[in-house]
Amino acid sequence: MREKPNIHFCSIGLRLPQITLETLNVLKKTKKIFLFIEDNNIDRFLEINKLKDKAETMSHSYDNNFSKISDEIIKKALKEKDIAILSYGYPSFINGLWNYVLQKAALKNINVNLINAIGSLNPLLHLAKFYEIPKTGLHFFNAIDIKSSKDIDLNRHIPCFILNPHNLKQNKKSELINVLNKALENKLFIYLVEAASAGGFMDNVIEVKNIKQLNRHINVRNTLLITDKKIN
Amino acid sequence: MREKPNIHFCSIGLRLPQITLETLNVLKKTKKIFLFIEDNNIDRFLEINKLKDKAETMSHSYDNNFSKISDEIIKKALKEKDIAILSYGYPSFINGLWNYVLQKAALKNINVNLINAIGSLNPLLHLAKFYEIPKTGLHFFNAIDIKSSKDIDLNRHIPCFILNPHNLKQNKKSELINVLNKALENKLFIYLVEAASAGGFMDNVIEVKNIKQLNRHINVRNTLLITDKKIN
Repeated sequence: MREKPNIHFCSIGLRLPQITLETLNVLKKTKKIFLFIEDNNIDRFLEINKLKDKAETMSHSYDNNFSKISDEIIKKALKEKDIAILSYGYPSFINGLWNYVLQKAALKNINVNLINAIGSLNPLLHLAKFYEIPKTGLHFFNAIDIKSSKDIDLNRHIPCFILNPHNLKQNKKSELINVLNKALENKLFIYLVEAASAGGFMDNVIEVKNIKQLNRHINVRNTLLITDKKIN
Repeated sequence: MREKPNIHFCSIGLRLPQITLETLNVLKKTKKIFLFIEDNNIDRFLEINKLKDKAETMSHSYDNNFSKISDEIIKKALKEKDIAILSYGYPSFINGLWNYVLQKAALKNINVNLINAIGSLNPLLHLAKFYEIPKTGLHFFNAIDIKSSKDIDLNRHIPCFILNPHNLKQNKKSELINVLNKALENKLFIYLVEAASAGGFMDNVIEVKNIKQLNRHINVRNTLLITDKKIN
């Protein structure tokens, strides 16, 4: 019986050198590596680990069209039998590619393996100085899903992380701003927790004291935190 | 000016070989490593990486009394100048040791560094097949904080992860069981997501169909998930 082809979803973590020994081992054994990654150290990393010859950048080749990219990945998996995708963050979380590849691979009888990596959620909590789950729970929303200020209930959802505000188009920001205004009126604290959701530039937690400040920061890849405790 | 002593909080991830290159590098450079870890492969890992001679098991020496253990860690840091603590999971999350050491180190002018590692939250979402944040948000509670079935609002908090039900004493389980009964009556789905919160034995997502089944599973280290979608 012929073995099924494999696609390994790998990640460097939030940035190099947060890659795990397990992931490095998978990359060394696989036939081809497709890169979906922006990290200044990636070239040097590939060279040191003798991975450069089998690595190929893919994210921009198809204009970030995940459906086309996943078709191409399926083709490569059928040809090479064993390939890896290398991105950052948790390989299956907020990454459209995972869903596309999973569905198309099932139709072609290809294995899809997730190799564990550092995702953004625990580092985000650490940055926000939550070392355990608070008594009122921890609540996460995607900014794009906030259709009305009623979606976030200040009695039920604090502390609350709102991911990816930078994804909002200008005309969709009003509801988010309503939520934040309501929070400020209720004397809650609002913070921007920078970029744990992306490349791991985890330097800053910035208190947002008014909407003017928010508008200055909101286009950067980051997360908003509404909480009843002072962080800094 | 003399440099401050350092304590590096490190982790293997959920299990070996999920340790990162960054962590391995810290362990190689530090003077002493204190182990708070249960992993069958740890001895072999220390030997291969020539870390065995400077590693010492500490968790059981003080009967898991974190206050005493942290006093001992502070003493060692002052003596050795640069030490590491090696545990599993995210080094500062649901780990009493972090808080104790952080506070005591501040009084003695010792640096405490967190080295990023794989924590349980992203793997937990992956196991539960959440590849993005659902429209109704993601909600996390600690079982021990559920004092009344009103704490979890089935209109506001679904999907909802309840961590560490195994920590509950028998006489405290009634409120959790009230919550779960209410969820079952509302035709929501309840799952046990095994042990992503601990050693990373991430094999099973078990649907809990009644309270009898729940009582059978609740003493294992795991997480409960209440959701309105079918997982398996």
